[in-house]
Amino acid sequence: MKDKALLTDLYQLTMLAAYYDNDKDERATFDLFIRKLPKDWGYYLANGIEDAIDYIINFKFSASDIEYLRSTGFFKEDFLGFLKDFKFKGDVYAVKEGTPVFPNQPVLRISAKRTQAQFVETALLNMVNYQTMIATKTNRVVNAAKKANNAKVVDYGLRRAQEEDAAMKGARATYIGGALGTSNVKAGKEYGIKIFGTQAHSFVMSFDSELEAFGAYVKTFSEYPTLLIDTYDTIQGAKNAAKVGKELEEKGKKLKAVRLDSGDLADLSKKVREILDQQGLTYVDIVASNDLNEYKIDELGENDAKIGGYGVGTEMITAKPVAAIPGVYKLVEDNGGAKIKLSPEKKTYPGKKQVYRVTGEDEKYSHDVLALDSEKLEGEPLLELAVKDGKRVRAKRSLDETRDYALRCVDKLPEHLKQSEVKEHYEMKISKGLNQLINELTEKYGNNHGGKKK
Amino acid sequence: MKDKALLTDLYQLTMLAAYYDNDKDERATFDLFIRKLPKDWGYYLANGIEDAIDYIINFKFSASDIEYLRSTGFFKEDFLGFLKDFKFKGDVYAVKEGTPVFPNQPVLRISAKRTQAQFVETALLNMVNYQTMIATKTNRVVNAAKKANNAKVVDYGLRRAQEEDAAMKGARATYIGGALGTSNVKAGKEYGIKIFGTQAHSFVMSFDSELEAFGAYVKTFSEYPTLLIDTYDTIQGAKNAAKVGKELEEKGKKLKAVRLDSGDLADLSKKVREILDQQGLTYVDIVASNDLNEYKIDELGENDAKIGGYGVGTEMITAKPVAAIPGVYKLVEDNGGAKIKLSPEKKTYPGKKQVYRVTGEDEKYSHDVLALDSEKLEGEPLLELAVKDGKRVRAKRSLDETRDYALRCVDKLPEHLKQSEVKEHYEMKISKGLNQLINELTEKYGNNHGGKKK
Repeated sequence: MKDKALLTDLYQLTMLAAYYDNDKDERATFDLFIRKLPKDWGYYLANGIEDAIDYIINFKFSASDIEYLRSTGFFKEDFLGFLKDFKFKGDVYAVKEGTPVFPNQPVLRISAKRTQAQFVETALLNMVNYQTMIATKTNRVVNAAKKANNAKVVDYGLRRAQEEDAAMKGARATYIGGALGTSNVKAGKEYGIKIFGTQAHSFVMSFDSELEAFGAYVKTFSEYPTLLIDTYDTIQGAKNAAKVGKELEEKGKKLKAVRLDSGDLADLSKKVREILDQQGLTYVDIVASNDLNEYKIDELGENDAKIGGYGVGTEMITAKPVAAIPGVYKLVEDNGGAKIKLSPEKKTYPGKKQVYRVTGEDEKYSHDVLALDSEKLEGEPLLELAVKDGKRVRAKRSLDETRDYALRCVDKLPEHLKQSEVKEHYEMKISKGLNQLINELTEKYGNNHGGKKK
Repeated sequence: MKDKALLTDLYQLTMLAAYYDNDKDERATFDLFIRKLPKDWGYYLANGIEDAIDYIINFKFSASDIEYLRSTGFFKEDFLGFLKDFKFKGDVYAVKEGTPVFPNQPVLRISAKRTQAQFVETALLNMVNYQTMIATKTNRVVNAAKKANNAKVVDYGLRRAQEEDAAMKGARATYIGGALGTSNVKAGKEYGIKIFGTQAHSFVMSFDSELEAFGAYVKTFSEYPTLLIDTYDTIQGAKNAAKVGKELEEKGKKLKAVRLDSGDLADLSKKVREILDQQGLTYVDIVASNDLNEYKIDELGENDAKIGGYGVGTEMITAKPVAAIPGVYKLVEDNGGAKIKLSPEKKTYPGKKQVYRVTGEDEKYSHDVLALDSEKLEGEPLLELAVKDGKRVRAKRSLDETRDYALRCVDKLPEHLKQSEVKEHYEMKISKGLNQLINELTEKYGNNHGGKKK
């Protein structure tokens, strides 16, 4: 992990300095949660959780960090001395990486001295917001592809990702969200994700004819090559690919797939399927790309497209047009008691909380209950102790275990949440104990004292 | 720079292997250009150019990269041996970082052996697409703020940036695009950008009263502190801030600003201005945040908001809802001559080209001419030789020089391009020579031979 101690908003450090200076360092609890769902979305797959935990237990100000802070002139020497040994010694409760979560449910609950618990906010949000968004967006695309001919999804997003980390953490998140693999070779190396690739149009254009280009490619990659067939004329491209496929058969090899990257993908896929089938190349798959998303894949499915795999780039790796989700980090309890915000738009649920997930008789999740940590209710508690006194106590899972877990959870989500346009939302009840606390605090702070109004 | 050799799509490596295997390694020229502008945008500020050049001249496959590629089973040993010493030895023409550019204008023109020129595509697009998008988006916000009360803009985006690199390269890009600084402390350290910060609502909520919280903060930061005044009631918050401001005056210190983060910012800013002015605190600025963008700032300006600074987060650092721009990298010439794509939607301009920028009598840019490199026309040529035979020949500018250059160029852009909703686009003419080449190639390849149809 990169050195992230300074990857924070300046106000975290000025607040820290003021807490330090004013001896305001009692234990406090903060929740990281997401305020609401984007239009059409039905759930989030919590992601970036393990990166967040690694950050919490490892951040440390280097000598050069402190030198830089000194150079800004903002901070006093004793505070800079305090930063030298500043580290997280508190507790973290966290959902498992890949868990479906809903608005206002804590995905991380952090209790520590106020300085420590407050400081981690910005970096945590940076990681959890992006990785959660991409795992979820991908899962939406994967759900659409599954309904459309049971097709697979591959991440093609590297060139449109918002810089390298987004491409890397994004490729990892797309895998957890159900993508089969990625075009990103570095993600293949770093995470062990399966990598996929064919040719660009420029490759085909670099030879005197498409057939010559295909020939050159399969000379090098004779084991299950994929050929891009739309550079000039897709139908002729399919015929050329079929010719090459038959030649491969004579050598005991097999063409794997052809790729479409333009035009009416549903219509072309049917025509190409027919051309391939006529030549007995029924095993050759058709894959498609071209600014795809879950809505377009739904439509391709409805039009009975003969497409077995989708390469999805821009919109999956950036979650365009959503682009950012409203994950926030809020004080919910301190030595002064539970904290609440009362405005309907920006409400926070007070106190140390737990989420209980209840499974119905159909083996699907029926509803969740947001409760006080002190209550013991039916259902599966989602928040687990992950860090105790600054030390990790929950083991990390492998990437494949995480992906399997996430996809098993998605299987248990009600079907109506897995549509591209979700109309009816999942139910989250509020427990009796939490309700009572909310009522008490509303009465106490309802007239603008102590509770934050919005 | 991180090791980016594998930060590429697998197809770059499979194409490379096929070119290598088929002795298809003559010199070729590729253009990196952006196909079109997002709705409402009038120009791009080219950015990420220097990162792109650093990448081109420095990428190198490490032993562990090659070991990983071997482990995939895709590649032959002689090709893996070739990769070991594979580096870029060609030429790069590039616009200056921060130059305004328009659709279909090459911002990078790369001539090298086909393997070298093709290979760099993906990483270049990853850098240039994001950094160009953010510099431009920021410049749009900065233009709006300038019209609204001549206000300044600060990057508050870290928590919503798409992971760390986006936050870092994004902060740098916002600075080039005209932001005054950033909340991102690591960007402050790494790039020398000025950093800004106040408190969060949780800080105010951590004390028994707002006044106590303000007192604690100015105890620590008595030199030009900024106070967040909307935690409970903005009007009362302004009065509390004014009280603290007067107390600071007695100590010979000054309050710098108050921050609004909710509600009707225009209306509140006027009321807060009045409260401050009544106390003689006319020098105390009002800054505002809360999901801002260029359109909302326009509206605040129209409503005569008394706001001197805007903290802009989510939409500036992700360019939401745009989220990605259509930068592409296309073969324009090889040993077979100039290459063209003929489809109206995805056309490419053939051949080695130059862009000439013509300034009118009003000292504003009047139009550009896209021309063949062999033509010498009036106007300023935008593409400069930056890399010759794999070595950098153009010096890098400092960040401040780059920012000054970009903003001076923006000054020369026609005013109608600097609105939040651009209706009329900048004119780019096609030179006689380029036109003639297009006509020749269209005639030659118009019937689906050699030219790519889309």
